[in-house]
Amino acid sequence: MPSPAKAYAAQSATAPLAPFSFARRDLLPDDVSIDILYCGVCHSDLHTVRGEWGGTLYPSVPGHEIVGRVTAVGGDVTRFAVGDLVGVGCMVDSCGHCPSCHAGEEQFCETTGFVGTYNGEDKVLGGHTFGGYSDHIVVKDVFVARIRHDEKDLAAVAPLLCAGITTYSPLRHWNAGPGKKVGVVGIGGLGHMGIKLAAAMGAHVVAFTTSPDKIEDAKKLGAHEVVVSRDPEAMAAHANSFDFILNTVAVAHDLNAFLVLLRRDGTMTLVGAPEHPHPSPDIFNLLLNRRAIAGSPIGGMVETQEMLDFCAERGITADIERIRMQDIETAYARMTKSDVKYRFVIDMASLKGA
Amino acid sequence: MPSPAKAYAAQSATAPLAPFSFARRDLLPDDVSIDILYCGVCHSDLHTVRGEWGGTLYPSVPGHEIVGRVTAVGGDVTRFAVGDLVGVGCMVDSCGHCPSCHAGEEQFCETTGFVGTYNGEDKVLGGHTFGGYSDHIVVKDVFVARIRHDEKDLAAVAPLLCAGITTYSPLRHWNAGPGKKVGVVGIGGLGHMGIKLAAAMGAHVVAFTTSPDKIEDAKKLGAHEVVVSRDPEAMAAHANSFDFILNTVAVAHDLNAFLVLLRRDGTMTLVGAPEHPHPSPDIFNLLLNRRAIAGSPIGGMVETQEMLDFCAERGITADIERIRMQDIETAYARMTKSDVKYRFVIDMASLKGA
Repeated sequence: MPSPAKAYAAQSATAPLAPFSFARRDLLPDDVSIDILYCGVCHSDLHTVRGEWGGTLYPSVPGHEIVGRVTAVGGDVTRFAVGDLVGVGCMVDSCGHCPSCHAGEEQFCETTGFVGTYNGEDKVLGGHTFGGYSDHIVVKDVFVARIRHDEKDLAAVAPLLCAGITTYSPLRHWNAGPGKKVGVVGIGGLGHMGIKLAAAMGAHVVAFTTSPDKIEDAKKLGAHEVVVSRDPEAMAAHANSFDFILNTVAVAHDLNAFLVLLRRDGTMTLVGAPEHPHPSPDIFNLLLNRRAIAGSPIGGMVETQEMLDFCAERGITADIERIRMQDIETAYARMTKSDVKYRFVIDMASLKGA
Repeated sequence: MPSPAKAYAAQSATAPLAPFSFARRDLLPDDVSIDILYCGVCHSDLHTVRGEWGGTLYPSVPGHEIVGRVTAVGGDVTRFAVGDLVGVGCMVDSCGHCPSCHAGEEQFCETTGFVGTYNGEDKVLGGHTFGGYSDHIVVKDVFVARIRHDEKDLAAVAPLLCAGITTYSPLRHWNAGPGKKVGVVGIGGLGHMGIKLAAAMGAHVVAFTTSPDKIEDAKKLGAHEVVVSRDPEAMAAHANSFDFILNTVAVAHDLNAFLVLLRRDGTMTLVGAPEHPHPSPDIFNLLLNRRAIAGSPIGGMVETQEMLDFCAERGITADIERIRMQDIETAYARMTKSDVKYRFVIDMASLKGA
C-alpha cells in the first residue's frame, strides 16, 4: 500500500517552502522504509528549490542528508532490520549493472546516471523523487547506509551523508594522509567537514578563509594553520607547497590564487559548481608544476559506508544548529549569508507533530 | 676566448628578424660547444619576438629546437666528444640542487626555475640568453642530449627537442599505452608529434581537427580515428570514452567540448597557454566523472634523452619543411595561418653562407 507522507515542498522557484502531502511507494522486495529523524540542509537544496541550476521539477521536496530508523524491510533485504539506525544521501538508485555501479561508485553510473534523492526520475511511481524534508522515505537497500554512531549524536551525523562524503571521497582519492600538506578552501558546511576529515586522516591541514574571525574556529576544527586568503603575503608564503587543495567554495572566485600554491603534480579539486562561472584560470599556472584542476561529486555507497564507519570510530560528526521544519526559510536566508556554524539540521519531530 | 656568433634577431616587438652578431661565452669545464646544423621554428619563437607573452628582452634570438655537431668540450665533460650529433631543447641551465633537478625534471626547478635557451637570464655573461637561430651555441653538458637517429634525418629530428618532448612527457605521465583511448586535439607542430608518439606507445589514438581536409593526413600520421570537432554528432559519439586527451591548441577555445569526452577519472592536459584566456570551463563537467584539466610544460633532460632514443629506435621524426634563415618572416606568416606541415626547420647552412 502506498503510504501517505508529510513533507515541505516548494511549488515554484519563487514560492517559500510549505506543507505538502504525497504518497511513498509500496515496499518492493529490496526496499527499506525509514522513519526520518533528522535531515541536514544543504546548499543544493536551496539552489534546487529556487531553480538556480535550471531543471527543477515542482513541487520540489529537497533534502539528501537523511538519518532515521528502519520501520519495515522488503522480503529480499538482509542487511537491515526494523529498528536499525540508517542514513540516505544524495542517491536512491542507479542502473546497477555498469562498471561504475559494480565498483560501488554509483555516482558515476554510466548508463542512466544515478537517481537523485530529490528531483530525480522516479522509476517506480513515475514523476520525480521527493527528498528528506519529509516524515519517511522508501529506498532501495543498496542506497541505505548503516549508522554506528551513538544515537545521541544522530542529528549531527545527518550532514555526513552529503557534506561528509563529498569531502571524504576526494581527500581519499587524492591520498590525503601523513606527510601530505592539504589545503581546505572555505569554512562552511563542506569545508568544516573537510578540515575535520583531512586532519583525522593525518594530513597537515591549512584552512583558507576570507574572514579573519574564522581563524580560531578553523583551528578548533583541526586546522594546523589558517590563512586569510585576502592577505597576499600570507598566501605567498605557501607558494608551491601543497600536495592537494580541496576547494569547497561554490561561488565564483579567482582560482589562480590557490593554483599557485600547489607543488609539482599537485591538484586542486572543486566540489561545488558555482551559479556563475569562475574567472577563467590562467593556463600558465597549470603548465608550471604540472598542476591540475579537478572536480569530484559526492561518493559511492561503499565509500559512504566507509566514511560513516571512519567517523563513528573517531567520534566525528558535523557542527550543527538544529531547526524546526517550519523555520526552513529563515535557515535558507541565514545560509545565504553564511550565517551558520556549520550546518542546519531539521528535527523531523517538528514536522510530524505539526 | 668568447667566440663571435652569427644570428638572426628581432630588435623590437615590431621589427622583423634580421642579421645580428654577438659573442658566445668561453667554454667552461662542463660546457659543450655545438655547431648548429638545424633549428626548428616553434610558435613560442614567434610569441616571444613579437612580445605577445610580455617580458621579451631585445635583441631577441629565438630557437630552442637545436641539432648540431659537437666542436669542442670542456675539461670535465665525459658524455660527449667532438663530432657527436647532439640536441638542445628549451632549457640550458637550472639550479641543479633542488629535488626536481635531482630527479632530472629540471623543467620544475624549484629554486631559480630553469633558464630558457632564449630570453632566459644568462648567469655567465649577464644579460639574457640567445637561442638557436645562430651558427653555434655553448651549453652546459647536462642540457645536451645525444642524437642516435641517422644523420640524414637530422633536420626532421630538430622539432623533437620541443614539440617532441612536450607531447611525449604528458603522454608518458598520464600512461598512454595499450588499452588506453587517447585523444589529440589540434594537428599542428605539437599535435602531429602527439599522434605519432601516442600511436607508437600503443594507445588507440583519436585525432581532433576543425578541418575536414586534415582527416587523411591525420590517419597517415597514425591516428586510428579522426573527428571533426565542429560536428556535434561525431563528438557526441565519443562522450565519456577517453582516458586521456592531449590538447595542443594554444588559441582560446571551448574546453567543455572535449571535457565531456573524458571517461571516469580522465584528464585533459593542455600543453600550450593561449594569448587570450579560454572561455571558463563548466565546473559541472569536472564534477561529472571526476575529470581533471591539467597542464604540462616540456619535459626534463632524462626524459628528453628517453624520448630521443624511443624515436630513434622506431624511426620517428617530425614532418617538416626546410627553410633558409633569410625566409623566417615568410615562415612566421604562414605559421600564423597554420599553413605548414607540420614544422618549419631552418637549415643553418643558409646563415653561415650569408
